[in-house]
Amino acid sequence: MRSLDTRIDRILESYSNLGGINLADSHNFPNRASVIAVLTDIENVIFPGIREDFVLDTDTLRFVTGERLHRIVRNLTNEVLKAIKYICTKEQRDGTGCYKYSEQIILALIDEIPELRRLSCTDANAALEGDPAARSTEEVILSYPGVEALMVHRVAHFLHTKGVPIVPRIMSEYVHGRTGIDIHPGATIGEECFIDHGTGVVIGETCVIGRHVKIYQGVTLGALSVKKDYADRKRHPTIEDNVTIYAGATILGGKTVIGEGSIIGGNTWITASVAPKSKIYNCVV
Amino acid sequence: MRSLDTRIDRILESYSNLGGINLADSHNFPNRASVIAVLTDIENVIFPGIREDFVLDTDTLRFVTGERLHRIVRNLTNEVLKAIKYICTKEQRDGTGCYKYSEQIILALIDEIPELRRLSCTDANAALEGDPAARSTEEVILSYPGVEALMVHRVAHFLHTKGVPIVPRIMSEYVHGRTGIDIHPGATIGEECFIDHGTGVVIGETCVIGRHVKIYQGVTLGALSVKKDYADRKRHPTIEDNVTIYAGATILGGKTVIGEGSIIGGNTWITASVAPKSKIYNCVV
Amino acid sequence: MRSLDTRIDRILESYSNLGGINLADSHNFPNRASVIAVLTDIENVIFPGIREDFVLDTDTLRFVTGERLHRIVRNLTNEVLKAIKYICTKEQRDGTGCYKYSEQIILALIDEIPELRRLSCTDANAALEGDPAARSTEEVILSYPGVEALMVHRVAHFLHTKGVPIVPRIMSEYVHGRTGIDIHPGATIGEECFIDHGTGVVIGETCVIGRHVKIYQGVTLGALSVKKDYADRKRHPTIEDNVTIYAGATILGGKTVIGEGSIIGGNTWITASVAPKSKIYNCVV
Amino acid sequence: MRSLDTRIDRILESYSNLGGINLADSHNFPNRASVIAVLTDIENVIFPGIREDFVLDTDTLRFVTGERLHRIVRNLTNEVLKAIKYICTKEQRDGTGCYKYSEQIILALIDEIPELRRLSCTDANAALEGDPAARSTEEVILSYPGVEALMVHRVAHFLHTKGVPIVPRIMSEYVHGRTGIDIHPGATIGEECFIDHGTGVVIGETCVIGRHVKIYQGVTLGALSVKKDYADRKRHPTIEDNVTIYAGATILGGKTVIGEGSIIGGNTWITASVAPKSKIYNCVV
Amino acid sequence: MRSLDTRIDRILESYSNLGGINLADSHNFPNRASVIAVLTDIENVIFPGIREDFVLDTDTLRFVTGERLHRIVRNLTNEVLKAIKYICTKEQRDGTGCYKYSEQIILALIDEIPELRRLSCTDANAALEGDPAARSTEEVILSYPGVEALMVHRVAHFLHTKGVPIVPRIMSEYVHGRTGIDIHPGATIGEECFIDHGTGVVIGETCVIGRHVKIYQGVTLGALSVKKDYADRKRHPTIEDNVTIYAGATILGGKTVIGEGSIIGGNTWITASVAPKSKIYNCVV
Amino acid sequence: MRSLDTRIDRILESYSNLGGINLADSHNFPNRASVIAVLTDIENVIFPGIREDFVLDTDTLRFVTGERLHRIVRNLTNEVLKAIKYICTKEQRDGTGCYKYSEQIILALIDEIPELRRLSCTDANAALEGDPAARSTEEVILSYPGVEALMVHRVAHFLHTKGVPIVPRIMSEYVHGRTGIDIHPGATIGEECFIDHGTGVVIGETCVIGRHVKIYQGVTLGALSVKKDYADRKRHPTIEDNVTIYAGATILGGKTVIGEGSIIGGNTWITASVAPKSKIYNCVV
Repeated sequence: MRSLDTRIDRILESYSNLGGINLADSHNFPNRASVIAVLTDIENVIFPGIREDFVLDTDTLRFVTGERLHRIVRNLTNEVLKAIKYICTKEQRDGTGCYKYSEQIILALIDEIPELRRLSCTDANAALEGDPAARSTEEVILSYPGVEALMVHRVAHFLHTKGVPIVPRIMSEYVHGRTGIDIHPGATIGEECFIDHGTGVVIGETCVIGRHVKIYQGVTLGALSVKKDYADRKRHPTIEDNVTIYAGATILGGKTVIGEGSIIGGNTWITASVAPKSKIYNCVV
Repeated sequence: MRSLDTRIDRILESYSNLGGINLADSHNFPNRASVIAVLTDIENVIFPGIREDFVLDTDTLRFVTGERLHRIVRNLTNEVLKAIKYICTKEQRDGTGCYKYSEQIILALIDEIPELRRLSCTDANAALEGDPAARSTEEVILSYPGVEALMVHRVAHFLHTKGVPIVPRIMSEYVHGRTGIDIHPGATIGEECFIDHGTGVVIGETCVIGRHVKIYQGVTLGALSVKKDYADRKRHPTIEDNVTIYAGATILGGKTVIGEGSIIGGNTWITASVAPKSKIYNCVV
Repeated sequence: MRSLDTRIDRILESYSNLGGINLADSHNFPNRASVIAVLTDIENVIFPGIREDFVLDTDTLRFVTGERLHRIVRNLTNEVLKAIKYICTKEQRDGTGCYKYSEQIILALIDEIPELRRLSCTDANAALEGDPAARSTEEVILSYPGVEALMVHRVAHFLHTKGVPIVPRIMSEYVHGRTGIDIHPGATIGEECFIDHGTGVVIGETCVIGRHVKIYQGVTLGALSVKKDYADRKRHPTIEDNVTIYAGATILGGKTVIGEGSIIGGNTWITASVAPKSKIYNCVV
Repeated sequence: MRSLDTRIDRILESYSNLGGINLADSHNFPNRASVIAVLTDIENVIFPGIREDFVLDTDTLRFVTGERLHRIVRNLTNEVLKAIKYICTKEQRDGTGCYKYSEQIILALIDEIPELRRLSCTDANAALEGDPAARSTEEVILSYPGVEALMVHRVAHFLHTKGVPIVPRIMSEYVHGRTGIDIHPGATIGEECFIDHGTGVVIGETCVIGRHVKIYQGVTLGALSVKKDYADRKRHPTIEDNVTIYAGATILGGKTVIGEGSIIGGNTWITASVAPKSKIYNCVV
Repeated sequence: MRSLDTRIDRILESYSNLGGINLADSHNFPNRASVIAVLTDIENVIFPGIREDFVLDTDTLRFVTGERLHRIVRNLTNEVLKAIKYICTKEQRDGTGCYKYSEQIILALIDEIPELRRLSCTDANAALEGDPAARSTEEVILSYPGVEALMVHRVAHFLHTKGVPIVPRIMSEYVHGRTGIDIHPGATIGEECFIDHGTGVVIGETCVIGRHVKIYQGVTLGALSVKKDYADRKRHPTIEDNVTIYAGATILGGKTVIGEGSIIGGNTWITASVAPKSKIYNCVV
Repeated sequence: MRSLDTRIDRILESYSNLGGINLADSHNFPNRASVIAVLTDIENVIFPGIREDFVLDTDTLRFVTGERLHRIVRNLTNEVLKAIKYICTKEQRDGTGCYKYSEQIILALIDEIPELRRLSCTDANAALEGDPAARSTEEVILSYPGVEALMVHRVAHFLHTKGVPIVPRIMSEYVHGRTGIDIHPGATIGEECFIDHGTGVVIGETCVIGRHVKIYQGVTLGALSVKKDYADRKRHPTIEDNVTIYAGATILGGKTVIGEGSIIGGNTWITASVAPKSKIYNCVV
């Protein structure tokens, strides 16, 4: 009566019947745990010392960095390979080119790291400048969720632009879970971006955000329509340079442009373009 | 002067005085870490491969599944046992029936797994259909927080309907922490549900949600009153089939019914019923 | 062509050029992983049994507590030392006083633990009283994110009042990541506080919150201006005793006072003071 | 000048040149860490509680055992599969029969476990009877290296008799490392065997040992010749029932038989057969 | 045909039938892994820094030591409690005295630590003096197996003299496995003892060894008879001060006394007493 | 009465009084755990796949190797640095040359790896040739303790010849503990060496062993005198090419030479030189 064997059988039968979700058959998908582990390595290369529990000194920095780069190439190449195989034809999978192609993407990502570091520095400086409570760049890097979310987004976005499926999405959902900031890997975000508090922020796939933009908690930059056949259109708004968007604002639509230097007040609902230097507020109690 | 001994004494004294929160005395409560570990096992049975860092093949799938089911029964029976003991009388605790009763609940949960898999598949398909940015069912399962939150909810809800206290709540708060989606284990949710982005969604204990409902970030399905003696009433709204609720909408009250096929716009505030096929929007800037 | 050596060189060069973010040079900052580990120890002292995966009994409670207190003093003294060194002058760093000063702060924190336990109990009781779905104090402590966020806040606030930089912020961002509740360590919060659901709550640095206040998800208690030279002013509102603030309300400004016993409705936007016993609601659809 | 890249190249070149030891090429060998992990599981099934750090009770014993058996079958089938593939032809490897064959061996091993438990009990009782310092069967099982070495040998020997290469040898060398007792998996050992202290004991591949034999530290049961073409002959001695062999004795040769009930004194050197009931001693200072 | 359920049943049946070895029933035995973990803590208190992978400084030494002592008392009290319960009557087990008694033994062990440190220092100095290859006390402590075996023996012997069963034997077999040196916890060993190389050394339960004794690899200090009813007699030899025993010597018998200052040559076999200052050698090839 | 504080004080006092063993003061010694971890990395570079629990393929081999080499250089440089600092003067320690010097030693070790691989291959082939029970080179590498002991010895010996203290000794004692084979890092051992079974083998600091030598368990190659002022002399024997030494033989003395091609029988005791092609046996019972 306590037998589990027939229960195992029923579940195995369910695996056979509900194909497509069962990951045990024809091909392998990127592994969430591996992608997150390699993301931690990447964060440690971008800001050495940010996560590790030991002290880095100049003598060993070269070796620690070398160890990480080798590990990143090995592991991320494998995960990206699985993601690429899954979208390519059987012929392509059988060829030897897939691995090389995947490796080249990862090497290109590593070549981008100095630029990613520069961008993250501009984000951290924007946070320091934009938040009276911030006391130092280091405090910002160690504890501001917006800075981490943008750092991860810039990595995921790079892979997204190279055509890698699933892996960037796993990265962005990981940092979404940690910070409450949901940025689709497809979004284009300029430098000096500051997302404060961040919980509930949603930035859609085809958003284009300029330089020096400030975004507060609960802001949605979304689509007006979710028709499936609009997937290839620009469905999300454009935010020009030096815009500030306060908490809870909702800005929707692929043709909506928030003009340069505008200030969008909290809890506003915007579905049409706004001229440069506009100030949009709800009435206040 | 550096002595910690008197400090230890003062804290122990505090444990004695503030009874009821101190877990070191009369009975044991379910352990959060154990509940979360077993939840990971359950997720791996529902979608084999979703979390594990190794490749499953058909040959070993039976043994991996068997290993997990045995571990789930052992560990979850123990945690549920602690939760049940804590609400039953001393006589009931002393009898041998508690363990058997707890074990039967867990075996029933395992019998439910094929159905839970089917429901999760409908949720994943709803996400694929409802989000232009989604590219494949696998991407959805691996990276959409709404799909995970619903999968965990369906497990927690099953235990809740069996009368198990605390354990389902630990599960739902765990996934709330990971996704920002807060669904009380008591809520009834139909198949093909899609919660997009999800951060800030709150679904109350006595909600009833039909089939094919779409819910965006920041939606609250809550109560109008929080009087303690209303605990046994239906305090949260009913959402009928094919309803879409956009970001930030707040729908309150146990008698509030959102009629079939309605569309509730973003940032709306609704405390009364709405006829089928209604479209409710705030005015737009 | 697969060489990583030149890539390592380019990244090391980037470390040299972008000084101030690179943590590998002149001084060490508090380590995020260590701070979080010690925070877990502190939570286990405040509510023994809340996180651990073993059963505590009276016989061993003294030894477990002693072990934890010694570990807390050792590890947190070191992290606080790094934070303090980083703001003090070279002369101060060279002296031996830094370690002693840091240790005294941690010992004072330990002396505060019985009071922190008492405050957390009042929070848990407020949750039990305020939520019809709550069934027991233990369920609340084990699974309500608001109770955890407040417990961590009270620890972080204590360190903040002692002038410790960075460490309290790491703690508050850690629990922000877990709960979606973002409370700045500087905020002053009275006893019997209940934050329900919590996702998206933001409580600013100079907030002052009285006793027995209820706060729902998505509430912002923020600043009207983010000018950097206002950093030392009171920029965030005062909430008096017995106030309830429903989901999505935004209350801004350092001179804004919500009078005793007021009820602030959901999705309201408030930038001026409100008299005691006020009830402020948006119009409802 | 600090470059490691050319050093990596030189080592990779060495991997290419010294084929046959480099495990990175054509086929995979059993993994030492996996074999040892599964061996720990087997030991825990044979003597539940012997290694685990938690308390087993009757209620959960079935589930713990089921979990272990599934894990043993999965993992050991895979390791044995690698060992078998490595000795079979390419045609055999390509067929699907290898996995089934490996699985059947492991299932047969599991069928043998009750018998292996019985044998280990006779060994433990022999130790209790034979050592005045032994106080209880439990002490013997928990702390006598001879009992563990024999338990592992009986597992390894079973696999050896099924024709599995390498895996049994990894098992016997693992326990050799832990106990200093080196028993080749090919040796045949009867029940009620007691190996006391054990360090330095060597028992060769074609030894045949009867029932109720006592062996002390430093005893060698070895071969007279190590010519490679004698590999298929019986090269090691036969020890009949009820023999005692004291510390440091060396008994060599495939035709050497130590007759029933004999006592072989310490530090003796024996290369010819000995009649039943003999007592062989060196002269004593 | 792949079913494991009937196999689980057969093994459970075997657990029921072979009572006394099955640890899943009436009482719990000390746990090997826990005893070894606490032993590592004790070694770290005796020689702080010997095993740990971090740097200790004077400031934190007090807190590290306090943490360890609390952990040692908690864990070792529990293991000793299981060992004591197992030998006492049901009445004794039900009383509350067992825990207190066990705790007092552990507190006495902790009171002994300064003396254990002193003894280990004399052993280390004896190794430094006695081995031309030894270059420093630190090298000796970090890498000489004889020093570790004696350190663990002195701990195990202390518990043995307090009447604790099984636990000291687990400790001595643990270090036997690591070093090949098998010292029964009952043996009495004076200070300044040096065991060089050590593999194969066996020192029996009732041995008495004086000060400044040197013992080489493969030495046996054993019994002449293993009759079970001699268990309470002195069965192993006495070694007086300043004796040296070279590799492979065997000295047997409870009445055998090796007189002060004697030198016992390699591979000798001694079953009778030897006068002080004797030099005993085998003839040499 | 349960206070541990005064006990902590007494132990701290003991740390102050017994200087030189307490590792918490003036300088740091190499850390045993770190040395062993790096040794595992070195073994994995020498025989890729020998220890790891994952499958290596050609594509990733370069990256895995690069990761390991960087980690080896970082970690072993640090441990060797601590060992070197400990023997050098304060002036030397303050200079910056110590780190560079240590790093150069480790880079030289890495340059030696192809040669170390070649030597280990000759050892493995010698085992395959010399043991009728050996079935394949792979079985030998995966399971013969003699092959591992020699592999580690060749690493430790390289560091010893570079003048590094303590670290090589930690390595050799680690593998002594695993295999029972005790080879001092100073010993010189030629290629094609086969140590069979190995338990109890002792090879002293100044031994010189030629090519193609076979050594069985319990063989001692030791010193005749252990006077401390002989530390710089050759105290251990020379074994010429193609010698076989059977189990338990003892060969002592720095001037003792075992001539080319000799066979030394089991349990012999030799303190003088032996001509080439000699066969030395004890008489046999």
